Amino acid sequence: MTKMKVALYLIRRLKELGVKHVFGVPGDFNLEMLDLVEDEEGIKWIGGCNELNAGYAADGYARVNKMGALITTFGVGELSAINAIAGSYAEMVPVVHIVGTPSTKSQAEGAMLHHTLGNGNFRIYMKMYEGITVAQTSLNPKNAKSEIDRVLRECYIKARPVYISLPTDVYGEEIEVDLSDDLNLSYPENPREVEDAAINQIVKEIQKAKCTIVLADVGTTRYSTTKELLDFVEKTGFPIFTSPMGKGVISENHPLFGGTYIGNVSELHIRQEVEGADLILSIGALKSDFNTGGFTYRVSTKKTIEFRNDHVKIFFAVYENVSMRQILPKLTSRLVQHQHGSKRIRTPYLSQPPIEEINSQQITHSWLWKEISSKFFKPNDIIIAETGTSMFGLMDVRFPEGATFISQILYGSIGYSIGATLGAALAAKNNEIKRRVILFVGDGSLQVTVQEISTIIRNNLDPIIFILNNDGYTIERMIHGLERKYNDIQPWQYCKTLEYFGATSAKGKKAKFTKI
Amino acid sequence: MTKMKVALYLIRRLKELGVKHVFGVPGDFNLEMLDLVEDEEGIKWIGGCNELNAGYAADGYARVNKMGALITTFGVGELSAINAIAGSYAEMVPVVHIVGTPSTKSQAEGAMLHHTLGNGNFRIYMKMYEGITVAQTSLNPKNAKSEIDRVLRECYIKARPVYISLPTDVYGEEIEVDLSDDLNLSYPENPREVEDAAINQIVKEIQKAKCTIVLADVGTTRYSTTKELLDFVEKTGFPIFTSPMGKGVISENHPLFGGTYIGNVSELHIRQEVEGADLILSIGALKSDFNTGGFTYRVSTKKTIEFRNDHVKIFFAVYENVSMRQILPKLTSRLVQHQHGSKRIRTPYLSQPPIEEINSQQITHSWLWKEISSKFFKPNDIIIAETGTSMFGLMDVRFPEGATFISQILYGSIGYSIGATLGAALAAKNNEIKRRVILFVGDGSLQVTVQEISTIIRNNLDPIIFILNNDGYTIERMIHGLERKYNDIQPWQYCKTLEYFGATSAKGKKAKFTKI
Repeated sequence: MTKMKVALYLIRRLKELGVKHVFGVPGDFNLEMLDLVEDEEGIKWIGGCNELNAGYAADGYARVNKMGALITTFGVGELSAINAIAGSYAEMVPVVHIVGTPSTKSQAEGAMLHHTLGNGNFRIYMKMYEGITVAQTSLNPKNAKSEIDRVLRECYIKARPVYISLPTDVYGEEIEVDLSDDLNLSYPENPREVEDAAINQIVKEIQKAKCTIVLADVGTTRYSTTKELLDFVEKTGFPIFTSPMGKGVISENHPLFGGTYIGNVSELHIRQEVEGADLILSIGALKSDFNTGGFTYRVSTKKTIEFRNDHVKIFFAVYENVSMRQILPKLTSRLVQHQHGSKRIRTPYLSQPPIEEINSQQITHSWLWKEISSKFFKPNDIIIAETGTSMFGLMDVRFPEGATFISQILYGSIGYSIGATLGAALAAKNNEIKRRVILFVGDGSLQVTVQEISTIIRNNLDPIIFILNNDGYTIERMIHGLERKYNDIQPWQYCKTLEYFGATSAKGKKAKFTKI
Repeated sequence: MTKMKVALYLIRRLKELGVKHVFGVPGDFNLEMLDLVEDEEGIKWIGGCNELNAGYAADGYARVNKMGALITTFGVGELSAINAIAGSYAEMVPVVHIVGTPSTKSQAEGAMLHHTLGNGNFRIYMKMYEGITVAQTSLNPKNAKSEIDRVLRECYIKARPVYISLPTDVYGEEIEVDLSDDLNLSYPENPREVEDAAINQIVKEIQKAKCTIVLADVGTTRYSTTKELLDFVEKTGFPIFTSPMGKGVISENHPLFGGTYIGNVSELHIRQEVEGADLILSIGALKSDFNTGGFTYRVSTKKTIEFRNDHVKIFFAVYENVSMRQILPKLTSRLVQHQHGSKRIRTPYLSQPPIEEINSQQITHSWLWKEISSKFFKPNDIIIAETGTSMFGLMDVRFPEGATFISQILYGSIGYSIGATLGAALAAKNNEIKRRVILFVGDGSLQVTVQEISTIIRNNLDPIIFILNNDGYTIERMIHGLERKYNDIQPWQYCKTLEYFGATSAKGKKAKFTKI
């Protein structure tokens, strides 16, 4: 057993989970905690310009690095970040949000401190976080070890954000800990009998079906089931399609990959294959409007077997507590053993239609996305799309080998992508191979969170940022108000972005701007 | 009776309350409502770069104009603005927050729409707003008229924010309304017997006291009691002091004005006068840490009579539901009638100590604030200070006649002041006299919300902005971590701010930058 400060124990546990960068903004209720972060080897403090952007960065980081962390101050800081954490919750991204809060004594007394609402209620902010985090805790020296371990485990297992309140008089208290005692990150075991019954039923349905396909979605990545899924399709030979949010679950050059299915918005041959199948194995689905082509999925429950993180559903029958991560390998071996795979290797995914001829000087969407995907993308790129024309444009573009796709297709908070780019670019440094980070963002969304380009420069990162300057909120003009002034925005000197945010100083010399 | 769309009725009521500018960001759940705002005479849509800034602008607007309004979209928009509304709640600023939400049908079905958390819970965001607004409502055609009237009245009477959810299928529904029927904005009457008893007791205490002083705070302004208070002190001759948040309640050149009392941080002669009094009439107090010199008020409950919006407290005895606004005029006439005022006109508030000699080229805080207050401020200036060295520097500076002071001394969210400047500058246009808007903001705080300078330029406003570039989070260095890297920030090309945000374009030509 070793004596260790509460905050240091938390930092060590974060490191154990692979967190090498912590995002946030300093504030007087977290400053002393930041001393410990700054002094700790192997973890780095990344100060953002504001908390919302830092929250987006922690989310982007977690999408590449499996887990992210954010430190804010009480009230003003945590509420500024709350929209980022709500996004992480919706999109199933594990972010640990640590809030530096007033001392236990001040809280008990209901003192009229700054950053409070002036009514003595110190629990209100944490209460706001209850609906958008899977676990919350307020630390004290007695509960610190067990509570830190509990909420970090919840964050990891459920792949959703958690909230930790760390009062100023608690962070530095010494507690007894055993450093050789690893965090318990094992998933709960599937109930054996239920799982067996599900497998038997699934095998029967596959035997009966003439044409089985796999439809993979974002849950596959979030609940770390990509390897199990790849093994499953390769051994069974079933063709695999993805949703927009599922892009990157499997290589889009894989011979079994059939394309991105987005309901009515899909290319015709993809629609025909998916909608023509008589059995659909749906893996980690998230059937939101933008992820399904505006609810135009034609995938009947009567022919769908859903594999989820916490259950399997065969048509209308739910098999509770059976996680896809554990059942898939067992199903693979059952099918291989009895040779129930389709065996056939399908026709490779067709190349995209040819790029249209351009007669004008204008850059059109139909030209841009095809040009980018055929000539610009490289293997292992991290491709980030802002909600708006960028996201819709990239949905059915072919991605290179090993690509990661980052976009808020469900939550859709504009401005997310700038912060996410900061986070993803730092996380990419943790990867063994060199990965490019490429962002596509419109002018309207850029304006929401532009200052985080400063933090990108400050940290000597070199993402490639495409600013699609179409003079206003274009995606909204398409929805309503084509000629309306409320869809106009102020024109900025975008070409001076890097200069304005200090790229000409000692830091960020690598940065350069090219206008196309 | 007239037929009118729900949203239009709401807009007309806002106009009746003096709202001529509505802040916010368009989003697909509020676009059609914005058509009505854009088409309505006498009210203008002011699109912000992001919702947090727009919320700050609505707050700054309300501090000059008595009421402000904000329109955001469901989820992503409202949660981005939540920190601004929490600040309005803490600091008692009436802001009407209207949220465009998904259709009643989608909500009832729990559809997997974008901007949701993907769990079918559409009430969760409104629930988060319960603790930081004094009324909430979700409109439908049946309740629209009464609910709009109810929440706007609450906002006005309680001087705190309210929340209105307006679904996409409701905003355009026609309802029967009577336009000649004014909004009921009358305050509830004080209970007569309780008020009489309080007055009798207060008069007795004043008769007994050798030295009575008045200590006025922010509640006086928020609950529209400044006129009543001025009449009270002028007719009784009691000297009046203010807290930092109470600055501007009375002219600082008034012969009865004694100075700003900030506990231990006050100038000595002010401390002596306030702490030496044997009866203190405290008007609209808000005893937060920064407003009391870090809780160093030496003002005993045993000698304090508190006048509040909803009660009077004589030492330890509470007289419920007696509002200061109604009791003060009655107390004034009782005291005048029986000649219980002090009669004496006090020695005018001493001028500030002389400005120190400057030997270096460096701008020091002690030089700056005195220089600014003695040479730069003009009558009717709207003076805005960011939380940090600007706010602390201005606390005990003498303000000119008719000045308005805007700062988040209780809530203290950095970045607030840029948005507030946008709002205040627009509100100042509604005033009959020309008022200058002057902002003092540090570099660290500027970075939080810098993009709203773009909206200031876009709307052809001309506030004077002092950027105090002291290379990092200076106020935090003073608290903790003087040499710590987490208090460093990226240096920007601040002198290019106006240019970068488009001031060289057709709009905002008036803007210029001067480096001192």
